[in-house]
Amino acid sequence: MIARLDAIRRLADGWGLLTDRSDVRWASGFGGSSGWLLVGPDQAHLVTDARYSERARLEIGSRPIDVVTIDASNDRYRIVGRLAGERSIAVRSSAVTMDDLARFESLGTRLRPVDFSGLRRIKDPLEVETIRRAASIADRALADVVALIDVGVTEVDVRDELDHRMRRYGADGPSYDTIVAAGPRHSAVPHHQPTRYAFAAGDPIVIDVGALVDGYHSDMTRTFVVGEPSDHFRRWYSAVAEAQKAGLDAVRPGVECRVVHEEARRRFGDEAPWFVHGTGHGVGLDIHEEPFLNGSSAATLCEGEVVTVEPGLYRVGFGGVRIEDLVVVRSEGADILTSSPKDLLCLPSRPTT
Amino acid sequence: MIARLDAIRRLADGWGLLTDRSDVRWASGFGGSSGWLLVGPDQAHLVTDARYSERARLEIGSRPIDVVTIDASNDRYRIVGRLAGERSIAVRSSAVTMDDLARFESLGTRLRPVDFSGLRRIKDPLEVETIRRAASIADRALADVVALIDVGVTEVDVRDELDHRMRRYGADGPSYDTIVAAGPRHSAVPHHQPTRYAFAAGDPIVIDVGALVDGYHSDMTRTFVVGEPSDHFRRWYSAVAEAQKAGLDAVRPGVECRVVHEEARRRFGDEAPWFVHGTGHGVGLDIHEEPFLNGSSAATLCEGEVVTVEPGLYRVGFGGVRIEDLVVVRSEGADILTSSPKDLLCLPSRPTT
Repeated sequence: MIARLDAIRRLADGWGLLTDRSDVRWASGFGGSSGWLLVGPDQAHLVTDARYSERARLEIGSRPIDVVTIDASNDRYRIVGRLAGERSIAVRSSAVTMDDLARFESLGTRLRPVDFSGLRRIKDPLEVETIRRAASIADRALADVVALIDVGVTEVDVRDELDHRMRRYGADGPSYDTIVAAGPRHSAVPHHQPTRYAFAAGDPIVIDVGALVDGYHSDMTRTFVVGEPSDHFRRWYSAVAEAQKAGLDAVRPGVECRVVHEEARRRFGDEAPWFVHGTGHGVGLDIHEEPFLNGSSAATLCEGEVVTVEPGLYRVGFGGVRIEDLVVVRSEGADILTSSPKDLLCLPSRPTT
Repeated sequence: MIARLDAIRRLADGWGLLTDRSDVRWASGFGGSSGWLLVGPDQAHLVTDARYSERARLEIGSRPIDVVTIDASNDRYRIVGRLAGERSIAVRSSAVTMDDLARFESLGTRLRPVDFSGLRRIKDPLEVETIRRAASIADRALADVVALIDVGVTEVDVRDELDHRMRRYGADGPSYDTIVAAGPRHSAVPHHQPTRYAFAAGDPIVIDVGALVDGYHSDMTRTFVVGEPSDHFRRWYSAVAEAQKAGLDAVRPGVECRVVHEEARRRFGDEAPWFVHGTGHGVGLDIHEEPFLNGSSAATLCEGEVVTVEPGLYRVGFGGVRIEDLVVVRSEGADILTSSPKDLLCLPSRPTT
């Protein structure tokens, strides 16, 4: 854990201030919603308010970080400015607001934007195992819930069961707002919010579900159909499955992220305009984090990164298909953490006789 | 709903850009995680990405707002800059990052910090009814779950049941991470995260729970004890109950927020150092929003605001007590939305014979 503070010191080249909640958690262990971590050459201070100071001490444990509590006469700007003295402070500019900037300026404290985005990209073995545990909890919950799907069941029924079962299986909660999107209209909305819409025969159902474990997220999508799919839907499903396989096959250290996206996308041929989002993103303490696998990404995959591969096709009035796995980038390729079946499953699934 | 766009125009005094998710939802109806709302003198544009454009159109409905989708050659900065032309754009400086600022500057687009914090403070009748519904769902879930509490039940058991039942009763989910904090150590941590700690005889249990309905939050805390409380604990409970009543009694339009805090706080006398947070905060599309009821607040309560009143006492090793209601500020005083009983309940509660 001291290695993490040292990584911040190296990037900061002097004093560094982490204001992003996940950065703070990664470096200090503190998971509350209000905390800044100030790292100096041979000291580190977690600045928080009185609601959190006891929890912060518990979560920091033996790390060499002291807790400084904000009070009426010492807000967090003053505390940071006083501790750092005259020195300029490195910050992640995407996690500092215009407001913060103005407050620091009024105290004469100078901030330097520094690229901290690489800090959390490569996961250590414990982080990978935590994400693997989260992924397998979501697999287990999905297997249970798929068995309950039938005509008349609603999107929120499925969402509620998934979330409840993930917790029963050891998750702290869902990793993000679980998506259950059914029918020709909702399934075509990539980030649909579940409603009381009841499944009808022929409906596609897109389920995007992950578990949260010790602050780490998992992420997976599977697409099902109620009853018998049309030939057109089968073709779309096959196209997405092939694109997803092409994306997985392209994952390897040293490969540019935009190449993974292009490998998936070109499998769609004429259907490519219906693939409206990127192919994937990093996952860790944030559900969406660096690197992003899309056409405008300048990043290159590194060994130990955890990313999604999730192409999809969407057309309102017809429906949507998305297939998503979560993988670790290994020298030999993608190590897949999500293990739910990817064949097109028609529900309710009939026992084979 | 056009009135809301006009309120933005008045505050912006020209072009205004909302970047805060709750501001965007309030003004446009769009509840997704990635959207900016640009409001001009006689036009309004929601700028989002392709994952959300269909959902945005559905949620915007008949409001006079058009959806502009980001693509590879037009990021949100370029789109906003092009639409607003040479004019400077009013922003909420707490919701614009240093990064955003640098991107706009590189395009020659000037931002003006404007105080938009008053926009959402006063709730209209539909907003109040939505929050009232959320509060009553949490009341109902808590009543169910209190009946299950006994020695050996764990914090996460109670959390999971509360969250599951709130959804069954119509919530979209919990309003925030439900807090169940038991025993002399955890209950003394105001924002404790539930663990597998099992309740023992004599434990205080602080439960802080709210429901989310159509984007609106509720917020409530009750404190229980397993078995028989000590005299000391009874005294603390009475002190918090009196402080909470004093806070409620002080709520009225025109009263300074810091006065409500002081009215609650002074009831604690010598115990006041154990009251380590503010007395309350506004609640709406955000769980914590303006106005804040603490010692350094400069705000004054207005009719139609929805705020919490939630004093507490905390000492690690002894325990904690917090009692919190959610209220609407009315000309005649606090209209209390949370209705769970506030007498000290010793669990399991024995049926009266």
